[in-house]
Amino acid sequence: MIKRKENGWPLPAGFYMLKVKLLRYTQQPERTVAMAARLCYSPVGAEELEEKLSDEQVTKLINKIVSLGHMSTLEHVSFTFAVEGVSRVLSHQLVRHRIASYSQQSQRYVAEHDFQYIMPPSIAQNEAASRCFSELMEKVRQSYAELTRLGVPKEDARYVLANATETKVVLTFNARSLLNFFSLRCCLRAQWEIRQMADLMLAEVKKVAPLLFKNAGAACVQTGRCPEGEMTCGHFSEMIKKRLKDGKEKKDEKTDKA
Amino acid sequence: MIKRKENGWPLPAGFYMLKVKLLRYTQQPERTVAMAARLCYSPVGAEELEEKLSDEQVTKLINKIVSLGHMSTLEHVSFTFAVEGVSRVLSHQLVRHRIASYSQQSQRYVAEHDFQYIMPPSIAQNEAASRCFSELMEKVRQSYAELTRLGVPKEDARYVLANATETKVVLTFNARSLLNFFSLRCCLRAQWEIRQMADLMLAEVKKVAPLLFKNAGAACVQTGRCPEGEMTCGHFSEMIKKRLKDGKEKKDEKTDKA
Amino acid sequence: MIKRKENGWPLPAGFYMLKVKLLRYTQQPERTVAMAARLCYSPVGAEELEEKLSDEQVTKLINKIVSLGHMSTLEHVSFTFAVEGVSRVLSHQLVRHRIASYSQQSQRYVAEHDFQYIMPPSIAQNEAASRCFSELMEKVRQSYAELTRLGVPKEDARYVLANATETKVVLTFNARSLLNFFSLRCCLRAQWEIRQMADLMLAEVKKVAPLLFKNAGAACVQTGRCPEGEMTCGHFSEMIKKRLKDGKEKKDEKTDKA
Amino acid sequence: MIKRKENGWPLPAGFYMLKVKLLRYTQQPERTVAMAARLCYSPVGAEELEEKLSDEQVTKLINKIVSLGHMSTLEHVSFTFAVEGVSRVLSHQLVRHRIASYSQQSQRYVAEHDFQYIMPPSIAQNEAASRCFSELMEKVRQSYAELTRLGVPKEDARYVLANATETKVVLTFNARSLLNFFSLRCCLRAQWEIRQMADLMLAEVKKVAPLLFKNAGAACVQTGRCPEGEMTCGHFSEMIKKRLKDGKEKKDEKTDKA
Repeated sequence: MIKRKENGWPLPAGFYMLKVKLLRYTQQPERTVAMAARLCYSPVGAEELEEKLSDEQVTKLINKIVSLGHMSTLEHVSFTFAVEGVSRVLSHQLVRHRIASYSQQSQRYVAEHDFQYIMPPSIAQNEAASRCFSELMEKVRQSYAELTRLGVPKEDARYVLANATETKVVLTFNARSLLNFFSLRCCLRAQWEIRQMADLMLAEVKKVAPLLFKNAGAACVQTGRCPEGEMTCGHFSEMIKKRLKDGKEKKDEKTDKA
Repeated sequence: MIKRKENGWPLPAGFYMLKVKLLRYTQQPERTVAMAARLCYSPVGAEELEEKLSDEQVTKLINKIVSLGHMSTLEHVSFTFAVEGVSRVLSHQLVRHRIASYSQQSQRYVAEHDFQYIMPPSIAQNEAASRCFSELMEKVRQSYAELTRLGVPKEDARYVLANATETKVVLTFNARSLLNFFSLRCCLRAQWEIRQMADLMLAEVKKVAPLLFKNAGAACVQTGRCPEGEMTCGHFSEMIKKRLKDGKEKKDEKTDKA
Repeated sequence: MIKRKENGWPLPAGFYMLKVKLLRYTQQPERTVAMAARLCYSPVGAEELEEKLSDEQVTKLINKIVSLGHMSTLEHVSFTFAVEGVSRVLSHQLVRHRIASYSQQSQRYVAEHDFQYIMPPSIAQNEAASRCFSELMEKVRQSYAELTRLGVPKEDARYVLANATETKVVLTFNARSLLNFFSLRCCLRAQWEIRQMADLMLAEVKKVAPLLFKNAGAACVQTGRCPEGEMTCGHFSEMIKKRLKDGKEKKDEKTDKA
Repeated sequence: MIKRKENGWPLPAGFYMLKVKLLRYTQQPERTVAMAARLCYSPVGAEELEEKLSDEQVTKLINKIVSLGHMSTLEHVSFTFAVEGVSRVLSHQLVRHRIASYSQQSQRYVAEHDFQYIMPPSIAQNEAASRCFSELMEKVRQSYAELTRLGVPKEDARYVLANATETKVVLTFNARSLLNFFSLRCCLRAQWEIRQMADLMLAEVKKVAPLLFKNAGAACVQTGRCPEGEMTCGHFSEMIKKRLKDGKEKKDEKTDKA
């Protein structure tokens, strides 16, 4: 269930690996969305809503909803992830997504003497940079220890901790908000760390709701065109190709395997 | 699963009964909340989060969260209801709760020749009022039929439909937003129809998350005091007594019976 | 300040005209957005933020923000409208927009003996339909009066009131949420009444923030393509032409005339 | 307009002072709220809404709204602040308030070679701790410079920056969300830095909307009782006394001085 992202370079000491685990999700997410959509457009009661809905009808309804972009029914299903091995650079960006819920490991209450840290690939791949980075992290560790030894409370000692410090978060998004998150954060212009996390989250939800998320990904992948204008990454065709490839591998899978 | 509320008076023709069905909810809701809370305050990883949490710990954590009012972890669990037999008076109030998701049967797309309607108890209990009300509903039905016969589209013919017209809604709230909803809508000062629905919703969620919702209800019941000031209903002690009684009947039930 | 929409047909008795009045808005809305955008990307302090920003810089920044679709800075400015002469069909749709604030005239507290009503054009233009509609409204008025005379409280008598009943709303949207509202509700596929209101709201905000809203309107107008797929209205080129024409008439106006 | 908080200890090098500036707010905020409230409960049109409302009526309406806790009308007025001299410890907490809008100086785009930092009082007051802290900040500065010299992009070099690093934010809250913010963040149990900022924000809004915010502050001050249970700070009576004193100094001021 837990994904380890092999990053292609030797892990330096203190490098902590990103893990994304799908903890909970609404049971039968695609059937749930289809039920809500069906209620809007047919004279059907609450009791029949579930019983008289075949798998074929679910597939057809979901495809229609997704292609027309009528997204409100997607809000009825939500996904809860546990994430660890991410930096506070990432978490500070993450919590800017306001249509979501977060619980984050507190540096106010949890002691950080043995913190882990995230080293960016651009630094890990450069020996001098990597050494400079690691040495600073050890100096931070010593300063944190000394401050707490001098009686400074944890909530103030944490002021010396780096952006790179590892943190853990439990997060819940509904499917509509997730699609928006993916459109922004799976984009090649997104910051690399949050993009890595977004890609892992997308892989997890595709396993349990393949139809809902079949077009999910960067904005270009979802809508067929890049909204970044002159800021475009220029890799539009590769992004589309990648999605089609991912899709093909999945094509024998069935809906709602939960 | 479906609740029928006996209202204590003979149902007139066209009176439609409120039904509330809990369609979906986050699996093991109390354990989910406890896991999120635990992550905030302990140096524990995503993988261990679930495994090392006994039922006793869950109970203890939930009780602490609820008593301290630290509600953000409650957002990780959500509840989806199908509701029918409610008026558009109710649905117009309902959708004012913005931290929630709705799918409502559309009067724009679904024909309403055979609409049902909700008659308020104050009218049903008065013979003259009840007759006046029913006669008007039949006149509305005729006008709707005539307008559509004259070629008026459904989306315009619906302008003649009454507030009393029955509607159906699928709605999803997270537990925190639900507690707020109950505090406002289970209050004796709330409008009777939405209060009836809120009471049925509360009864449903208490079955699957008794600890989370053990203090849930009108603001007075949740917090131990009435916030309505000079507008108070004056029934504070009865409300509290009712909750204690409900609680006693539930006391042998276990957590997270899903 | 108040717009009267001439609808091109004789107003039947009881027909009430839509009015939209811009009550309040953030002072110098475009400068405000530019200040926020500037803070993100330059090493500039809070004190200098306002002083060192020329009108040319504001124009350049706003054009960049709007063309790149980096919308978060638009949230710092908000617009408050008073609306009257709209039906409860409209208000029920309106309050589904959750990133906004509403205060609506209460049918629970305000007596409706002398209610006004909104008659759809498709009905007003057909003599038989119009007569049928008006007669029903009078029957509703009589029933409401009789019910209250019989002692039924206002909050229950309102169950007989029609969807067509006139209501009044004060609403506040920030600029980002407004753009989303316009993209959905200025669309020719939107219901006619809310589209009429959206068009008037757009005309009002264009007067005080012409740059911010220069591309605002239906999704096709804002983004240059229709998202409705097979449901498209087919009037894409006319919509674009209309916007260009509106723009030309405005081109001598200055920014932030507040 | 800008507040400097004298903290009572000598400012060490690199210590940066918190500034809060109220950049924009809805004109005549109290009158605006009163207009919205009046619309809900009286048969009054949009045009008359403003004209026929005396200052005495505004005062009376606002007092009633605030005392009854009917807060939805407060959402029509919003307040935009520029804040500088705060740490990223603070900003990470701040942006957890989701009913608000933020623009923050980007460490991805703005170079941080000359960063300022916030030193917690508990460290500044202890000579050994203060030296340890300052030395680390210089080491961070050197590491950041070296990494960028080695070709590491700014967006990765920032991983070494400390939580203490100074940041700047433009933030917008509506009055209802502000009251909730104050109830949590003016509390003596809140973290000291965000409490300091919340206190300054409260002082600013009290100048322009004294009636709306006359009871604003920590939850105990707003509601007359502490919700923290066994976690209470135990300073309830001092908090209340402080508010009463603040109120007395303000009592000759008039409403809506904008």
